[in-house]
Amino acid sequence: MTEARHRVVVIGAGFGGLQAVLRLKGAPVDITLIDRRNHHLFQPLLYQVATASLAPSEIAWPVRNLVAGRPEVRTILGEVTGIDKAARQVQLHGEAPVPYDTLLVATGARHAYFGHDDWEPFAPGLKDIDDATAIRRRILLAFERAEVETDPAVRRALLTFVIVGAGPTGVEVAGTIAELAHHTMARDFRALDPKEARILLVEAGPRVLSAFPEDLSAYAKSALERLGAEILTGHAVTECDADGVKLGAERVPAKTVIWAAGVQASPAAVWLGAEADRAGRVMIAPDLTLPGHPEIFVVGDTARLDAWNGQPLPGIAPAAKQQGQHVADTIRARLEGKAEPRPFRYKHAGSLATIGKRAAVIDFGWIKLRGWLAWWIWGFAHIYFLIGLRNRLTVALSWLWIYTTGQRSARLITGREQEEE
Amino acid sequence: MTEARHRVVVIGAGFGGLQAVLRLKGAPVDITLIDRRNHHLFQPLLYQVATASLAPSEIAWPVRNLVAGRPEVRTILGEVTGIDKAARQVQLHGEAPVPYDTLLVATGARHAYFGHDDWEPFAPGLKDIDDATAIRRRILLAFERAEVETDPAVRRALLTFVIVGAGPTGVEVAGTIAELAHHTMARDFRALDPKEARILLVEAGPRVLSAFPEDLSAYAKSALERLGAEILTGHAVTECDADGVKLGAERVPAKTVIWAAGVQASPAAVWLGAEADRAGRVMIAPDLTLPGHPEIFVVGDTARLDAWNGQPLPGIAPAAKQQGQHVADTIRARLEGKAEPRPFRYKHAGSLATIGKRAAVIDFGWIKLRGWLAWWIWGFAHIYFLIGLRNRLTVALSWLWIYTTGQRSARLITGREQEEE
Repeated sequence: MTEARHRVVVIGAGFGGLQAVLRLKGAPVDITLIDRRNHHLFQPLLYQVATASLAPSEIAWPVRNLVAGRPEVRTILGEVTGIDKAARQVQLHGEAPVPYDTLLVATGARHAYFGHDDWEPFAPGLKDIDDATAIRRRILLAFERAEVETDPAVRRALLTFVIVGAGPTGVEVAGTIAELAHHTMARDFRALDPKEARILLVEAGPRVLSAFPEDLSAYAKSALERLGAEILTGHAVTECDADGVKLGAERVPAKTVIWAAGVQASPAAVWLGAEADRAGRVMIAPDLTLPGHPEIFVVGDTARLDAWNGQPLPGIAPAAKQQGQHVADTIRARLEGKAEPRPFRYKHAGSLATIGKRAAVIDFGWIKLRGWLAWWIWGFAHIYFLIGLRNRLTVALSWLWIYTTGQRSARLITGREQEEE
Repeated sequence: MTEARHRVVVIGAGFGGLQAVLRLKGAPVDITLIDRRNHHLFQPLLYQVATASLAPSEIAWPVRNLVAGRPEVRTILGEVTGIDKAARQVQLHGEAPVPYDTLLVATGARHAYFGHDDWEPFAPGLKDIDDATAIRRRILLAFERAEVETDPAVRRALLTFVIVGAGPTGVEVAGTIAELAHHTMARDFRALDPKEARILLVEAGPRVLSAFPEDLSAYAKSALERLGAEILTGHAVTECDADGVKLGAERVPAKTVIWAAGVQASPAAVWLGAEADRAGRVMIAPDLTLPGHPEIFVVGDTARLDAWNGQPLPGIAPAAKQQGQHVADTIRARLEGKAEPRPFRYKHAGSLATIGKRAAVIDFGWIKLRGWLAWWIWGFAHIYFLIGLRNRLTVALSWLWIYTTGQRSARLITGREQEEE
């Protein structure tokens, strides 16, 4: 007679969810890992897919293959439609509900338009592989169309790229598009000079990389300007359509607008009927559980906990991974009848952002770095955290190639266009 | 006062068109290269993208980058809508017509359904990157759905893969899906055993690889069977829909059907108002020109010339490249006032097909090879012909990885589904 094992259900195979599953190795639990995508995504490098530096398969891996050696882990590709807290079941679209004893919700976030969801078709954000290849298509097509465009005004709009939001993603996208235009594609066109391209980084706040110390912000700004990007701080986008954006009184005609301004948590708060903050993040207890529900954990970008010197935990991969580990340790302690770990304590290793292929800023707290050394540390750190030897090798090769030749290999326009003209 | 240079327009940046452009380097001509895609595709390896072995960017390169060092070559991403032979202009969708002095039409072919175009949504073919990623999505999704399917009949249909047509592409696809199911994914599922998958290669003719000698056909058949594929020769598909195919009297329920049965030339014959054969190929003169129009060349899969021991030229890359070279040499000779080269003479280097990752067949004419040695020759030949050092390195690395670990890195389900259930 076999005793039923404790059932852990994990929703979301991002950094938080996957880390919990990996950390539960050997624990006496049966795990079901549910995700809408079949792959775990190394999101910190997603902007490099959008800007044609890396191929999608270099930064994404099939989830079920990552847990292939763990017979107790079952992977389901499925869409969660709700959570029945009373019956302790996760409801899936078109499939049988999945019962749990312990639930971990780690479903991340998407970009947010601050009440202007109608802007999304004109200003796509960057959260998954399809977003990235769609943005890549837009950027590359804009140059192709400009090459055959005879109307100077239209051509100008085709060659204007507006990036909204100057956090790390916005800075990274702007820097890479500037490099693409001014270096990678410099010799590839005949009727146009790609250097004519205008890359405009718009930020409502007073400076770029506002989460970084002021001197690193200033360095990032000047590094971006050296790459040929323009920075416009203190300007919010007030209108956005197929032909451009409005920044206060000024209208900027632009055929390519990329949204990097805000995030909205996944609908987990709705599924859970739980209290959420303005960004949709579930308010959680210091042990990462849903108040009143010790069997439900919520982590990563889906959760709100002010446990970083009284500030919300940052929406970065290390924070999500540490939370996933904490959840796994708590589950393990409970099953072994031991004392649960103390409330989650976040250890901040540092903040990193890169500007093109030769500069980066790093704030370790005890030391601040900028320039080429920071870039190399950034590069090695990201390669180190990539899953799998093969991806480390190919990403290293891709970067080495871009670094030495300036050429990007993933300049493919794929997919059918949504909006045909 | 500058003299107007001879204008060469090339439609299609496949093997034939690109080769002509490369061979015209240094000639006193202005070249316009038009393609609907922004990339040149190494089509012989496209099936490896469809079966998750390679990433799209490993076998495709931006056309304009390939000719970046040639200021006299202009690249246009555009859709040809017609050719005005009298005015000597190529008409483009939404753009100004492009005038030519010499025109090369090398627009390739697509898969053909022999009068059953309504089968296409159910049985996609494999001609471009989007076809390949769509087929990859279907194959991988079928396994994902089978994993959560409780109805045994539906699960059986989900795990049945029908490949229609046993030419090189059909054999390569069937062999690779068999390997994917029986090796790569063997440990990745819980509710299903991927080895349950049925891979059925259907061929209307009497044997697989009918263009090869009979003993190599027989070897390919047994190699496929060793990989776990079933071969059904002498059976034509008579019906095809979302639930499967009908083979004569027998109905085979299958959620994934892949079409590798026939090709239809691009609409070049219609554009040119030219005589075409049943497959839509333009009938051309021995010097590769359109009869009556020495200024128009048609090559590759778009053209029909019975110049291979009285048989039509084969639809393979080397044949297209040789024709592209011949056209370039003819243009050059004319401009230099020299005698034109003799009628096009095709040199057949050999026929190759691969069956999974350890076997291949090669017919050099003077020697026939099969087995692992043939596979290594096939592999080296393909890496050698890939454009660019970087792609040679990454493809070699991808293959080495698959060969030694059995793992395929490009197992990504991307793109939105066309037909939602």
